[in-house]
Amino acid sequence: MRDYLRALSNWGRWGKDDELGTVNLITPAKRVQAAGLVREGASVTCARPLVTDITADTSFQPLRFMVDSGEGREHDSPERNLQRRGAAEFIGMVFHGYTITHVDAPPHYFWEGKFYNGRPSSLVTSREGATVNSIEALRDGVVSRGVLLDVARTRGVKWMEPGQGVMPEDLEAAEKAAGLRVESGDILLVRTGYYGRRIAEGPVHPLKAGSPAIGTDTHNDIHPPPYPAMGNSFHVVCLVAMGLWLIDNANLEDLAQACAQRKRWEFLLAVCPLRLRNVTGSPVNPIAVF
Amino acid sequence: MRDYLRALSNWGRWGKDDELGTVNLITPAKRVQAAGLVREGASVTCARPLVTDITADTSFQPLRFMVDSGEGREHDSPERNLQRRGAAEFIGMVFHGYTITHVDAPPHYFWEGKFYNGRPSSLVTSREGATVNSIEALRDGVVSRGVLLDVARTRGVKWMEPGQGVMPEDLEAAEKAAGLRVESGDILLVRTGYYGRRIAEGPVHPLKAGSPAIGTDTHNDIHPPPYPAMGNSFHVVCLVAMGLWLIDNANLEDLAQACAQRKRWEFLLAVCPLRLRNVTGSPVNPIAVF
Amino acid sequence: MRDYLRALSNWGRWGKDDELGTVNLITPAKRVQAAGLVREGASVTCARPLVTDITADTSFQPLRFMVDSGEGREHDSPERNLQRRGAAEFIGMVFHGYTITHVDAPPHYFWEGKFYNGRPSSLVTSREGATVNSIEALRDGVVSRGVLLDVARTRGVKWMEPGQGVMPEDLEAAEKAAGLRVESGDILLVRTGYYGRRIAEGPVHPLKAGSPAIGTDTHNDIHPPPYPAMGNSFHVVCLVAMGLWLIDNANLEDLAQACAQRKRWEFLLAVCPLRLRNVTGSPVNPIAVF
Amino acid sequence: MRDYLRALSNWGRWGKDDELGTVNLITPAKRVQAAGLVREGASVTCARPLVTDITADTSFQPLRFMVDSGEGREHDSPERNLQRRGAAEFIGMVFHGYTITHVDAPPHYFWEGKFYNGRPSSLVTSREGATVNSIEALRDGVVSRGVLLDVARTRGVKWMEPGQGVMPEDLEAAEKAAGLRVESGDILLVRTGYYGRRIAEGPVHPLKAGSPAIGTDTHNDIHPPPYPAMGNSFHVVCLVAMGLWLIDNANLEDLAQACAQRKRWEFLLAVCPLRLRNVTGSPVNPIAVF
Repeated sequence: MRDYLRALSNWGRWGKDDELGTVNLITPAKRVQAAGLVREGASVTCARPLVTDITADTSFQPLRFMVDSGEGREHDSPERNLQRRGAAEFIGMVFHGYTITHVDAPPHYFWEGKFYNGRPSSLVTSREGATVNSIEALRDGVVSRGVLLDVARTRGVKWMEPGQGVMPEDLEAAEKAAGLRVESGDILLVRTGYYGRRIAEGPVHPLKAGSPAIGTDTHNDIHPPPYPAMGNSFHVVCLVAMGLWLIDNANLEDLAQACAQRKRWEFLLAVCPLRLRNVTGSPVNPIAVF
Repeated sequence: MRDYLRALSNWGRWGKDDELGTVNLITPAKRVQAAGLVREGASVTCARPLVTDITADTSFQPLRFMVDSGEGREHDSPERNLQRRGAAEFIGMVFHGYTITHVDAPPHYFWEGKFYNGRPSSLVTSREGATVNSIEALRDGVVSRGVLLDVARTRGVKWMEPGQGVMPEDLEAAEKAAGLRVESGDILLVRTGYYGRRIAEGPVHPLKAGSPAIGTDTHNDIHPPPYPAMGNSFHVVCLVAMGLWLIDNANLEDLAQACAQRKRWEFLLAVCPLRLRNVTGSPVNPIAVF
Repeated sequence: MRDYLRALSNWGRWGKDDELGTVNLITPAKRVQAAGLVREGASVTCARPLVTDITADTSFQPLRFMVDSGEGREHDSPERNLQRRGAAEFIGMVFHGYTITHVDAPPHYFWEGKFYNGRPSSLVTSREGATVNSIEALRDGVVSRGVLLDVARTRGVKWMEPGQGVMPEDLEAAEKAAGLRVESGDILLVRTGYYGRRIAEGPVHPLKAGSPAIGTDTHNDIHPPPYPAMGNSFHVVCLVAMGLWLIDNANLEDLAQACAQRKRWEFLLAVCPLRLRNVTGSPVNPIAVF
Repeated sequence: MRDYLRALSNWGRWGKDDELGTVNLITPAKRVQAAGLVREGASVTCARPLVTDITADTSFQPLRFMVDSGEGREHDSPERNLQRRGAAEFIGMVFHGYTITHVDAPPHYFWEGKFYNGRPSSLVTSREGATVNSIEALRDGVVSRGVLLDVARTRGVKWMEPGQGVMPEDLEAAEKAAGLRVESGDILLVRTGYYGRRIAEGPVHPLKAGSPAIGTDTHNDIHPPPYPAMGNSFHVVCLVAMGLWLIDNANLEDLAQACAQRKRWEFLLAVCPLRLRNVTGSPVNPIAVF
């Protein structure tokens, strides 16, 4: 294991059977603190729309198929009206990728045959999925203080360019601009403007056109990678070494505006992953409340 | 339209283009009130595990298929370790039904060719889905005071029996036991113990074995129906007439215990539906915070 | 109904309950005739590869997900080797479209609310599918004399251009070049070279880049349509009026070569649709035997 | 490797790169011989209906979802009639299992980390599927003499009972009753009556209720297994050692009747697997022609 993976490792920190990783840092006191940030009662989504289009950044097309629809119902007989009134659909998706806002669970990534806490990758099987440390470990939700570090704003740009990295000094400048410090147990959202660019200029494939990073509104790895010998190094460091669950592909545009209006970059953030058994993450709609 | 549908109708109440229905009643003040209920920082899931098993109450089997797994990785060469480190999966489901905790959007149900606010059912097409009033209308989440009326507890039973209805006096008794009153803008959770019974005694098909109702931990319609001329009457009244979004198939067992321990049946409740475009609802994991 | 739809109509020709349409013309004698064409025992596919790629002509991405794989098995213990030895997958697709070789059943298309034999389109429901006249009507397969009319070859081009139609004189010229006449009960394959072009020059979207037609190696409708007031007119004429099942998106490249080598454009053709209940067609792999 | 696996092995027989296995034995001469058996022109399906029901023998529920339906079309305006006339659906399935008639490709099974011809099981990956020896190797179809050995009939029973095996003397008796000998390159169908029993008495789960075997109308492995130390031994012997592609879950009921009527148990059989890339088999509809 490389030095920086070892240096940042949380393996064993919360016991050898731990499944929560850095979510252990979200204490009851953090949740109470977060609730104290709700002063106006305004809520804002951090999710992108989840649509079935094939776009330049689609790896797997999301699916929506009706199992019953409303067409022709206005002509139903009274008997038929009584019998059948619903519409419903099948939905399906590979939420990992470049378009869907989702949480990554630690076993989404491996390094040298292991994932968080030194567990063997063979515990994630093609038949049964992630038999340990799946997203279901977050069944009670993730509610804490959310902090937006709006790096694009601090840099004075609409969005960062492909290949540009978010550097420590960017984070410090954004903290300073926000008038706060990121603390243990916070949910950190870093804005690069990447999704704003997608809205304005249309989708591009990040592995072809490049992407900035590391930002919650990106796929959380820069392309081309600055560490040529290691692709998706941020994922490896966070998921494998640190046990730090990631939010990928967030929509921070509305949130950035809401923060700027209020000149307040902290809020209660509720992330409520689906209780999917043996799954390496979940699509989510993180909700910020001011 | 029947008398009681007309009497309970909210059509036009919030304008002819309204898509929110009774969620209009969740005001900023309600969200602030909800945040004030967070005193300990304890959070509890209200979702059932979402699994791929076929059980007696399965209509459509949920799907989980790996698009990459961790098997054999411990034997990867260093080059291959660098190239490929992730596990990911396809998930798919028809979340309406009897097993998955989900929110119903108004166009999930029709009556005489119309849904909430008098819109024609033909706006829900087999090709495009729910072109108006879909779950995406709740993109900013539903955060309010949650209230649990634990009718099974008030009745002194582990669970209610098939065919037993939750009556107005049940609700009043549960309110009294809880020492509170349900108010405008609250998210009401009614517990019948139905899911507790499923845990204890295994799944049964509600249309064969019967079901109590109306409870958030059920499919929200009693079977056999007490109004023989109208199946799923609760869905019709709530979704079509009232514009009242429903939570179906919740898991209120952990919540009931958390409330009883604290002798407190109110809490902040965060319901964060996926931002699914043109879909008649969403699987959810509602999180209660005390 | 338009004049040419009426003129070409087979409604009622084989009785009001008929589900076979022109497949009625494939008599036992035709099957015996077809078998008589097998002289060398050479067989050739007429199907395109069915892949999961997203290409310019993809409407719905085909799916392949493993439910078990072979990775890591070489390191299994003897006990585990005994328990688990299989690989298997989920496959899924919308076979109608522009890429998958498939058969269209008559209820794939409607005209003025009706499909073949005057049945109401409402018999094809979002809940139950094609409740009559589905592909299952062809459960006993379609085996007959196949005839390839290689129009591209007769015209002396590698492929026909977008917007070019196959005209009656093309068919007659191809018949003449092949030294045969198309007869009742034959399965007619018309080659435009469209798929050869896709192999050589890559996929394009037919509704954007245009397409020649009417050919079995196309989606069987010319674009832009020569009859501006009616899109996909060939489908309407064949499926609705005539009850003529179509093969769309065939691969006639290997077959064309096999025919040219032998200077023989007739062969036994076996089309064996899956026995899919209530479905408006089937992916197929039509096999020609010389 | 066990003695009988070694004794029956075809590894290397047709070269180290061979993907066809015993299909190599179906020579052009066999196809010509098969065509010679077509005397009446009658065709019969050997496939079961492919339905979406959950039954006692369902492992994965087959899917059919409409992407467009015919409801409400009779009320379309003339303009809308011109624009939209089709019905189409998504279909999805795990065809391996106990209900769908399908062909197994050799990499469906492994033994000690290898499949047919000694290839490593790691060539069948969760990401890419069966990268060699997939069903696409049969792209040109399998057309040969089909032979039905109707063991249930020879034994004088409607169906064989769970745990009863088809023994060599059964096959010889059935050959004798049919007045023929199975030869190299034939496609052998063995009938136990298992599917007839399912029709008459309803589905049961073979691993719970037991199953006879080895028969083409079964899942091709007896349960409980007669060789306790090796589950699904027939699959291992055929797929891994012999490179013998299997047809599982066929419907031989109509065929058995057709043979008995004619007192002829040989026919042309056309098996036309879908041209699925990297897939370990295919659903099929094998067609017998007399």
